[in-house]
Amino acid sequence: MRQNLIFTNDVEAAVERLKAAGDHNLTVWIADVNTARLLPAPPCLITIPDGEGNKTLDTVCHVWDEMERMGVTRHSLVINLGGGMVCDLGGFAAATFKRGVRFINVPTTLLGAVDAAVGGKTGFNYNSLKNEIGAFAPATDVIISTRFFDTLPIQEMKSGFAEVLKHAMLSDHDEFMRLLNHDFHAPIHHDDLLERLHRSVQVKTDIVARDPDEKGERKALNLGHTVGHAFESLAMKRDKTVPHGYAVAWGLVTEAVLSHLLLKFPSEDVHRLGNFVRDNYRDFPFTCDDYDELLDIMRHDKKSRDGEITCTLLAAIGDYRIDQTVTPDDVTAALDILRDLLGV
Amino acid sequence: MRQNLIFTNDVEAAVERLKAAGDHNLTVWIADVNTARLLPAPPCLITIPDGEGNKTLDTVCHVWDEMERMGVTRHSLVINLGGGMVCDLGGFAAATFKRGVRFINVPTTLLGAVDAAVGGKTGFNYNSLKNEIGAFAPATDVIISTRFFDTLPIQEMKSGFAEVLKHAMLSDHDEFMRLLNHDFHAPIHHDDLLERLHRSVQVKTDIVARDPDEKGERKALNLGHTVGHAFESLAMKRDKTVPHGYAVAWGLVTEAVLSHLLLKFPSEDVHRLGNFVRDNYRDFPFTCDDYDELLDIMRHDKKSRDGEITCTLLAAIGDYRIDQTVTPDDVTAALDILRDLLGV
Repeated sequence: MRQNLIFTNDVEAAVERLKAAGDHNLTVWIADVNTARLLPAPPCLITIPDGEGNKTLDTVCHVWDEMERMGVTRHSLVINLGGGMVCDLGGFAAATFKRGVRFINVPTTLLGAVDAAVGGKTGFNYNSLKNEIGAFAPATDVIISTRFFDTLPIQEMKSGFAEVLKHAMLSDHDEFMRLLNHDFHAPIHHDDLLERLHRSVQVKTDIVARDPDEKGERKALNLGHTVGHAFESLAMKRDKTVPHGYAVAWGLVTEAVLSHLLLKFPSEDVHRLGNFVRDNYRDFPFTCDDYDELLDIMRHDKKSRDGEITCTLLAAIGDYRIDQTVTPDDVTAALDILRDLLGV
Repeated sequence: MRQNLIFTNDVEAAVERLKAAGDHNLTVWIADVNTARLLPAPPCLITIPDGEGNKTLDTVCHVWDEMERMGVTRHSLVINLGGGMVCDLGGFAAATFKRGVRFINVPTTLLGAVDAAVGGKTGFNYNSLKNEIGAFAPATDVIISTRFFDTLPIQEMKSGFAEVLKHAMLSDHDEFMRLLNHDFHAPIHHDDLLERLHRSVQVKTDIVARDPDEKGERKALNLGHTVGHAFESLAMKRDKTVPHGYAVAWGLVTEAVLSHLLLKFPSEDVHRLGNFVRDNYRDFPFTCDDYDELLDIMRHDKKSRDGEITCTLLAAIGDYRIDQTVTPDDVTAALDILRDLLGV
């Protein structure tokens, strides 16, 4: 799987270059109700409702119907402009329409830029299960820019930042320490942030290049997500919304604790991470009464096997171990410590 | 794309070997109401309604729901037992469930064996358009057997035979001539037919191996299908059923005529083919009143570009040319000659 990643704050020029280099009969944009406003009324725009709750088959069908109506063919170009939801769902719709139309991603959120837009996973939620239906289908090009972030709610920035943190934990202790000093209230310095994004995305693309279909090493990117997805799925079941990155932040702490318990991951790094997450991602909505349901969701994770709970854990920052089996007791203990660290 | 093709009439042994070689937590069969009867009540069976009219998103959802209920994971194995519809739709459902579960195809029809089961195209009909939504996702293994054919209606045998004929036209004049002597009323000689299937499928797999995603050479396999699909789509629009292979047989004749008009394909081969199709696939349900609608469908073919009609044509048997643009007048003339040749 090869993806062309373009880091630039001149998005229009990058889009025009890509359009000029291709030989497409039609360009269609997919955006949600918010990101559609970023576009100077394009000739072909498919607008979808926003939010995780609309990442459904109904929305996919709406996109297919609109593609049909607009005359999209295999020689057309689809541009997804939006956060993770637009990139995931628009990517799936494009990848399956007439068995595959070329698409490029222009993520407008930090989370989209460092996670959903890159790496080729597409999909939608089904039967209340997150990304239950999908395909490995890479956008041919991804244009990564920080220029949409000035107007992004701080909660959205925090949500994306959790994935940036994850990439640092998989690769580089110095970067991990630098990130823990991040101040979400300071104004965005675009050049610096773009450079930091470049480094963060590189961690992901290096891993994906070695294992595009998640047979092995790619599971490293699952750090924080076995537990994090359980938080997210349980919230979704209850029709509450937990931002993906918040769930990942709590998942990172929980799995750092598990890493300490099982692989002697240094306790000082657990505490550094715990403090940062306490300061920035505090509103944890679960109690010990939810443990059974959370454990049950973890047993049914896409990556689980035979009902066992498996995580990616760390022996140290940058030293990851995939396919680590953890017991329900381990997870229960780690969830207790998470709640202690968060002070909830 | 690599597929393991197994030509055998001991299907059970082949299935058992594949199951034993894999490390799967669960094996699930997908079959239609007819092919389900071929199975000695397996523990996990998803039954779908049969027929092209049920190759719909509703049926795909039924398969996804059942997979969910049965606890299918990424470590499970799906076995599609049926004709082209089961292999296409079951393959798509498996390829997209949790972003991809391994599946193998056991085609039970001649058409499935030489066409749908092999080569990695999956999908379903959408908005009355044939295979409008789908993915390139190869079954890891395909078990090809003639043992299901003894009870196959003669119409089904004829339908599959058109694809066998197509493969010969793409590759080998001697084989083409041999096939034209085929007698559908003679009893099946299993070893001979299995050997013939092996040769036919090899033509397809050789081409697919060089171009799995249909960027170029794979379009050779579209011979007979630009026109053939139009017959099929128009019939579907009118809620009539035309067997795929019948549509292909008429498409092969029409495109042989176009090949003669544009590339000097020998007229004696046009007549040989026309006679065989007249003798075996006569019930052509269209008249000159349908030409406009047929041309319109051809302009909207998945492989068409800018509303032009493109076909794969032949300069001679075995000498194919992809991406040949034909005019509506050419097609109209060829359709007239088709109807003459069929004597309708």
